[in-house]
Amino acid sequence: MGGDHGPAELVPGVARAAQILTGEVRFLLHGDEAVLARELARHPALSGRIDVRHAERVVGMDEKPAQALRRGKGTSMWAAVEAVKTGEAGVAVSAGNTGALMAISKLILRMSADLDRPPLVASLPNPRGVTTFLDVGANVDCDAERLVEFAILGEAFHRAAHRVARPTVGLLNVGHEEMKGHQEVREANRILREGAFDFDYRGFVEGDDITRGVVDVIVTDGFTGNVALKTAEGVARFIRDELKAALTSRILGKAGAFLAAGALRQFRDRLSTPPAAPLLGLNGIVLKCHGGASDRDFAQALRVAADLARSDFAVEIERNMGKLPAAMAETVPPAAEGAP
Amino acid sequence: MGGDHGPAELVPGVARAAQILTGEVRFLLHGDEAVLARELARHPALSGRIDVRHAERVVGMDEKPAQALRRGKGTSMWAAVEAVKTGEAGVAVSAGNTGALMAISKLILRMSADLDRPPLVASLPNPRGVTTFLDVGANVDCDAERLVEFAILGEAFHRAAHRVARPTVGLLNVGHEEMKGHQEVREANRILREGAFDFDYRGFVEGDDITRGVVDVIVTDGFTGNVALKTAEGVARFIRDELKAALTSRILGKAGAFLAAGALRQFRDRLSTPPAAPLLGLNGIVLKCHGGASDRDFAQALRVAADLARSDFAVEIERNMGKLPAAMAETVPPAAEGAP
Repeated sequence: MGGDHGPAELVPGVARAAQILTGEVRFLLHGDEAVLARELARHPALSGRIDVRHAERVVGMDEKPAQALRRGKGTSMWAAVEAVKTGEAGVAVSAGNTGALMAISKLILRMSADLDRPPLVASLPNPRGVTTFLDVGANVDCDAERLVEFAILGEAFHRAAHRVARPTVGLLNVGHEEMKGHQEVREANRILREGAFDFDYRGFVEGDDITRGVVDVIVTDGFTGNVALKTAEGVARFIRDELKAALTSRILGKAGAFLAAGALRQFRDRLSTPPAAPLLGLNGIVLKCHGGASDRDFAQALRVAADLARSDFAVEIERNMGKLPAAMAETVPPAAEGAP
Repeated sequence: MGGDHGPAELVPGVARAAQILTGEVRFLLHGDEAVLARELARHPALSGRIDVRHAERVVGMDEKPAQALRRGKGTSMWAAVEAVKTGEAGVAVSAGNTGALMAISKLILRMSADLDRPPLVASLPNPRGVTTFLDVGANVDCDAERLVEFAILGEAFHRAAHRVARPTVGLLNVGHEEMKGHQEVREANRILREGAFDFDYRGFVEGDDITRGVVDVIVTDGFTGNVALKTAEGVARFIRDELKAALTSRILGKAGAFLAAGALRQFRDRLSTPPAAPLLGLNGIVLKCHGGASDRDFAQALRVAADLARSDFAVEIERNMGKLPAAMAETVPPAAEGAP
C-alpha cells in the first residue's frame, strides 16, 4: 500500500516481475482487499501466483517510527514483516515509510549483528556496474568491530543482489597506506586482513574510488558515508544544472541542446536512485523500495528480492559473523593476554 | 623555481599579475639568477617592480618534508618563506613541493593556532561562486576546538580572497537538527553559536550543500573533508567520462559532440583545481599554487596573494582566536565548575 503511488504502481510492478521471474516465485500482497482486487483485475496473468492478505490499516508516510511501532499491528507493513518472521515469506518488500519499516523490522525480526540499527546501503554507478556503499547514515559512531560487520553484510548483499561470485571489499580512508587514517579505520583494516573471513578484502580505498569501481563494496561509518553520498548527489546535480544552462545558452543554441538531450537523459538514468536498498543485519530479509518507485522500479526490486531469498545470503552472513569474535580476540595485545 | 614548468610559466604569470595589480604591489623572485634573468628579459614592463634574490638550490618536487627541512637553507623556497618572517614580503607564493612548503613554513613561521599542521583548503564551485571547504586532509582527528579554529581561519581566508564582506559559515553534519551527528560536531556547533566570534555562523549543513552555495565556508574534520573532496572529484570525472562516451556514441553522432564540446569545456573549467590554496594558521601568509599552474593560474594566485596581504586577514584571525578560550570555558558544565 506504500509509496507515492500505492497499488496503482505496485501491482503493475508485480505483474512485470512475474514475467521475469520463474513460476516458483509467488507473491503475497498485504493491504486493502478491495483496492488490491481492483488493481489485480487488470492483470489476469497473475492469478494463481498471488495471494492477498487483507490489512485494515496502513502506516502513514509521515508517521514517526515510535508512533508506527505503537499502532503498527494490523497494518499492511507489519503483516509483511511478520510473514518473514513466520517463514511464510522469504523476503518483505515495501515502498512505505522508511523509519517505520526500520523500527517495525527491528522489533519483529531483531538484529542479528551487534548494531543499533541496520546500516543504510547506497548503490552508486561505476564504469563496470554498481558500487555497494555503506553505512550512509544509520550508525554515526562506528568502532572497528562495527566497520567489520558492515563489510560482512555489504559483501553478502552485493553477492546476492548483483550475482557476483566473489565481490571485492574496500575500507574507505584518506590514503592507501597502512598507517593512514584514524584509530578505528586502521584497527578495522587489521581485523579484516587477519581474520579468517570468507571474502576478498582489498584494503583501503579513497573517495574517488567509489565511482571508479576499484572494488565492489566500500565500507565506512555512517557519518562519513552520509556526507560522501550527499556530496556525490550534490556534485551530480550541480553538473547537470551547469550543463543544462550551458547547452541552452545562446552560444551553443537549441540544436546542440536537442542533440545532447538523449545523452543527458542516459547519464541521469545511471545516477538516479536505485530501486531498492536492503535493511541489513536483521534475522530476515527486508527490502526498502524508494517512495517514488515506478512499476519498472518495483519489478527490479522484486527481482533483487527473489535473488536474495534464493541465495545463501543469510547463511554467509552468519558464517562470517561467527568468525568475528576470534578475529577480534587476536587483536588483544599479548601483554594484556598474559597478565595474571 | 617550483611547479611542473618552473620560471617559464611563473615569470609570464608575474607579468600578467603586474598588469592587473596596482603599482604599489611589488615582486620578489627567489631562484637561479641566470634562469630568472633570461625569462625576465622577455618582460621589460616588469623592470622597476621586481627584485631577484639568487638562491643556490631548489627543493626537489619529490623530496620528503624531513629531507627538505634538513637541507632547506639556501633553497629558493626557504628564502621566500623567510622573507615573510622578516617582513620583507607580505606573502609567499610557491608552486613547489607541497609537503616541503608546509614543513618549511611551519618551522620558520610557526603555527598561530593550536594545530598540528595547517588545514588544507579546497575551493569548490557553486552556482553563486566558490565554497571554501576545509580541512580536506591535514588533520584527521579533530575535536570541537579544532573545528572552531577551522571556522575562524576559513572565514578570514574567504573574506580576503573573495572580497566578501561577511562570509557565512556552516559546519558539515549528517542533518540540520541540533541533536544530529557525533559529539565533536555537536559541541563545535554549540561553541560557534554561543561564542562571541565576529562572523556569520549559520549552523549545520549537509554534503550536498557544498556545491549548492548555501554558505560560503564549510568546516569539517580532515577525514570527512578528504573523503568528500575526493568523492566530488570522482563523481565529476565519472560524469565527464560517461557523457563523453554518450556524446560520441553512434546514436548521437559527431555533430552533437562537436556542438556540446564548448559546453563541456566550460563546465570542466569551473570544476578544475583552483590556482592557489592557503596554508592557514601560520604567523604569516603562504599560498600554495598547484604544480601544473599556467601563467594565467599564477597571475590569479598572485591577485589572491595581494588581496590577502592587503587585508586585515591576520588581525581578524587573531581577534577571533582570542575569543576562543572564553567560548570554550562557557562549555564547562556548571556542576564541574561549582565542585570544591
